[in-house]
Amino acid sequence: MRETLNTIIFGTKTPAGKFFDLALIWAIVISVVLILLATIDAISEEYRRGLYMAEWVFTILFTIEYALRIYSARDRKQYIFSFYGVVDLLSILPLYISLIFPQASYLLVIRLLRVLRIFRVLKLLRYMKDANLLLRSLWHSRRKIMVFFGTVLIMCVIIGSVMYAVEGPENGFTSIPKSIYWTIVTITTVGYGDITPQTNFGQGLAAATMLLGYSIIAVPTGIITSQMASELRRDTMLLNCLACGRGNHETEARFCLKCGAELPNDLAEPEDDVS
Amino acid sequence: MRETLNTIIFGTKTPAGKFFDLALIWAIVISVVLILLATIDAISEEYRRGLYMAEWVFTILFTIEYALRIYSARDRKQYIFSFYGVVDLLSILPLYISLIFPQASYLLVIRLLRVLRIFRVLKLLRYMKDANLLLRSLWHSRRKIMVFFGTVLIMCVIIGSVMYAVEGPENGFTSIPKSIYWTIVTITTVGYGDITPQTNFGQGLAAATMLLGYSIIAVPTGIITSQMASELRRDTMLLNCLACGRGNHETEARFCLKCGAELPNDLAEPEDDVS
Amino acid sequence: MRETLNTIIFGTKTPAGKFFDLALIWAIVISVVLILLATIDAISEEYRRGLYMAEWVFTILFTIEYALRIYSARDRKQYIFSFYGVVDLLSILPLYISLIFPQASYLLVIRLLRVLRIFRVLKLLRYMKDANLLLRSLWHSRRKIMVFFGTVLIMCVIIGSVMYAVEGPENGFTSIPKSIYWTIVTITTVGYGDITPQTNFGQGLAAATMLLGYSIIAVPTGIITSQMASELRRDTMLLNCLACGRGNHETEARFCLKCGAELPNDLAEPEDDVS
Amino acid sequence: MRETLNTIIFGTKTPAGKFFDLALIWAIVISVVLILLATIDAISEEYRRGLYMAEWVFTILFTIEYALRIYSARDRKQYIFSFYGVVDLLSILPLYISLIFPQASYLLVIRLLRVLRIFRVLKLLRYMKDANLLLRSLWHSRRKIMVFFGTVLIMCVIIGSVMYAVEGPENGFTSIPKSIYWTIVTITTVGYGDITPQTNFGQGLAAATMLLGYSIIAVPTGIITSQMASELRRDTMLLNCLACGRGNHETEARFCLKCGAELPNDLAEPEDDVS
Repeated sequence: MRETLNTIIFGTKTPAGKFFDLALIWAIVISVVLILLATIDAISEEYRRGLYMAEWVFTILFTIEYALRIYSARDRKQYIFSFYGVVDLLSILPLYISLIFPQASYLLVIRLLRVLRIFRVLKLLRYMKDANLLLRSLWHSRRKIMVFFGTVLIMCVIIGSVMYAVEGPENGFTSIPKSIYWTIVTITTVGYGDITPQTNFGQGLAAATMLLGYSIIAVPTGIITSQMASELRRDTMLLNCLACGRGNHETEARFCLKCGAELPNDLAEPEDDVS
Repeated sequence: MRETLNTIIFGTKTPAGKFFDLALIWAIVISVVLILLATIDAISEEYRRGLYMAEWVFTILFTIEYALRIYSARDRKQYIFSFYGVVDLLSILPLYISLIFPQASYLLVIRLLRVLRIFRVLKLLRYMKDANLLLRSLWHSRRKIMVFFGTVLIMCVIIGSVMYAVEGPENGFTSIPKSIYWTIVTITTVGYGDITPQTNFGQGLAAATMLLGYSIIAVPTGIITSQMASELRRDTMLLNCLACGRGNHETEARFCLKCGAELPNDLAEPEDDVS
Repeated sequence: MRETLNTIIFGTKTPAGKFFDLALIWAIVISVVLILLATIDAISEEYRRGLYMAEWVFTILFTIEYALRIYSARDRKQYIFSFYGVVDLLSILPLYISLIFPQASYLLVIRLLRVLRIFRVLKLLRYMKDANLLLRSLWHSRRKIMVFFGTVLIMCVIIGSVMYAVEGPENGFTSIPKSIYWTIVTITTVGYGDITPQTNFGQGLAAATMLLGYSIIAVPTGIITSQMASELRRDTMLLNCLACGRGNHETEARFCLKCGAELPNDLAEPEDDVS
Repeated sequence: MRETLNTIIFGTKTPAGKFFDLALIWAIVISVVLILLATIDAISEEYRRGLYMAEWVFTILFTIEYALRIYSARDRKQYIFSFYGVVDLLSILPLYISLIFPQASYLLVIRLLRVLRIFRVLKLLRYMKDANLLLRSLWHSRRKIMVFFGTVLIMCVIIGSVMYAVEGPENGFTSIPKSIYWTIVTITTVGYGDITPQTNFGQGLAAATMLLGYSIIAVPTGIITSQMASELRRDTMLLNCLACGRGNHETEARFCLKCGAELPNDLAEPEDDVS
């Protein structure tokens, strides 16, 4: 019986397994929509009580599912500490915690992360391939991005402190942490306008900060773009024709543009990979 | 007679067909400008009535034109369900609907989309080629962009819910949907400032959200840029000289930089494509 | 005498010509700073009168210079209708116009464009080369950029009209042109917050507009980046070693990385180009 | 003794040297956090006095350290005028200056720049390599970026002056410098909303400025991205297999993808470089 449960809950190949996963995704989406609705003022008190009940019903169902997942997993420890295992736990915990801290119940929306399973369920192979290319580009750029953000944060602390010295609490810069908040709002070009410099020197410094933020946004873009271009080139290079050597085919090409021979494109034969 | 009408209305080669299309584009632009003017307060009541009349005149003319298009189309079904067929219908419907729902009349501006016909009318071949390159880049990146936006939306829902739990209705975050709206305003670096975090923890979370938005904007840019660079490279590669093999010519080059032989540039012989 | 004047005013090779140009640039910068200062409230009435007098002195000097330029130009017609000829005229006209329309005097700052002559005066060859690369990239991308902006403007008109229908004058969207202004403020992620949607549907539509603006900014970036990468690659390709064929040298390289032979880098021999 | 001090203070190879540097970095981070805390209103007067004392203790310690660095440096002049030498001095000066100008004490946060030593201390070779690639890209693009910013600043002055003439002091544009501040706020898409155009013509001009800012942000991005892609390509090109010639390996690859021979990757043999 444990094996059957495993096939249904974890598997996506059998009709039962596919049905279970799709039902689960729908349940997650509906439960999240209900959480969102429950916070809207315009909805009457009575409806809200119903929504609160529904939240409990969904969470208890998900708790049972979580228990069954642990019971039927082939390697229990591995499941519990995997990405999805942790997300599955975080998707039910907040409601139990909200019995003590009521605010916590809104964290239930974290269960939306479970919807990412949809790629595996619907066998969206190409989407997964593209998502992998994005993740791989980010992963290969991680050190450059960390160096960049470390530098930006140090700059924000220094600029924030100077602005605090220049503008002071009387112009809304009530503390250095708040000044740093203002600097981040400015350097990222968000610009709420809840705190704005009032002195001439402060406005000049703010203008310099904006131009800095405006130009350094080019750096992460440059990092990721050049990495992505390099990944894409490597992908395309694999699409050389084995017969005539013609390269640079489109990612989705199945046949050589020049001689018509079949290309070694892993997207071209999805049967092997799926069944 | 139906064939003559077809040549005039759908064709752009004959003088009559070209004149018809240009007159139509002018009529569309003028009618849209009149719609915009009609909403300005400073314009007196009397003028407005005139503008409202003009709207009806234009819409009736466009209705007649639409009827003639259906009548004279070679394949009526194909025309009605084509992009331009649908836009042509949407360009006249709102005024008739506005007899019941007055607000709908402003949707008449959708007829501005009909102006896109100008590329075909004026034979702006190169513009169409460039527009195609943009569309092709977007189309080839569609899955990457959808994966990216799916992820951003899930992040917005989760961050919005956390901000609602942290700030609460007393600081302007009156419901989770409104918090999600704030998150999108922040993550896209728009930053209206109509809702801003007031608590220290909320401001710290907001700063993290901004830095996140500031850096992930690099992802769609990277996707489209690397795709566009790849499309452009493919275009340029086709501009290899057939005589000496020299590649990497400018997109508009007609002759080889090295040996002077004519290049296989489709822009170089517009006669074949147009007449 | 006309020839001597020409050497001094237009030439940059002789000491007198170089001195004249540098003095001119300083005079322009000082006169613009004075114009800016004259508008600051904190400056007393008396000083302002002095600044106003200085403006006249500078403008009369520039008028004399303009007259001398016309007098000494080798091809007068060509000078008057060249970029610098038009800017030179626009740099003095506003003050004379301001005798009738006082507001016009602020347009004198247009004379700042004359400072661009500095590149030629100081023989900033590499800066000019880089400026040319930027301009060439923009020029080659002009059609793609125009197609993009045409599409964005049509979208702004349509979104603005829909927002006017949804929000209406009672929420600050007083007319369709004002709604289009709001749409541009939103789609470019500026986000002043002087007009913000109040209804739930309007906020949802605004969020969609922001995400649209957030993602389509990738398009002009992609256009210019891929064009610039292509220009840069063409530049680098010219830096192939003539002796051993090793390519991909840095733009500023003078000798081959592999065999040490001199590279055909036009920056490496500035003497030929300048004297 | 001077040599021993040098090994401890400047060296990072011996256990004592490593311990000293790590202790220093912690002391810097803690002292900066204390400076930030001291400006928060919610912290009681009594605590603040303690924080102020701590500031003095840290600064005296850093002063002693600075004296010891000068004493033990092999080339004193070189140290004093090096980047770190200047930062070390700027990290202690503000507190002494604050005895006369109290505001100056906030500039102590500049000591955060000393934390950059962490890369050298922890031998974060790859991070340094990536930081170098970023700096090299910025350095090679410096002239293009300066040309770009010069042009943007000239545009900002001209647009600011026109907006001052159009909107005038009654709409918040109280002087041309303030109008230029507004222009920079708008062109960088920050958009505080503290100053907004009120007239129709001013709003039209503002919309044009936004679209301009929205599109020219593509230029620095294009500059840095194409430069970075070129640097990255040069890095990858060095990763050609010496045995079979296969190129385009990942930056972190140690062995050839095709024949398995070891690659000439300087990251692959960190021992040589570090010990």
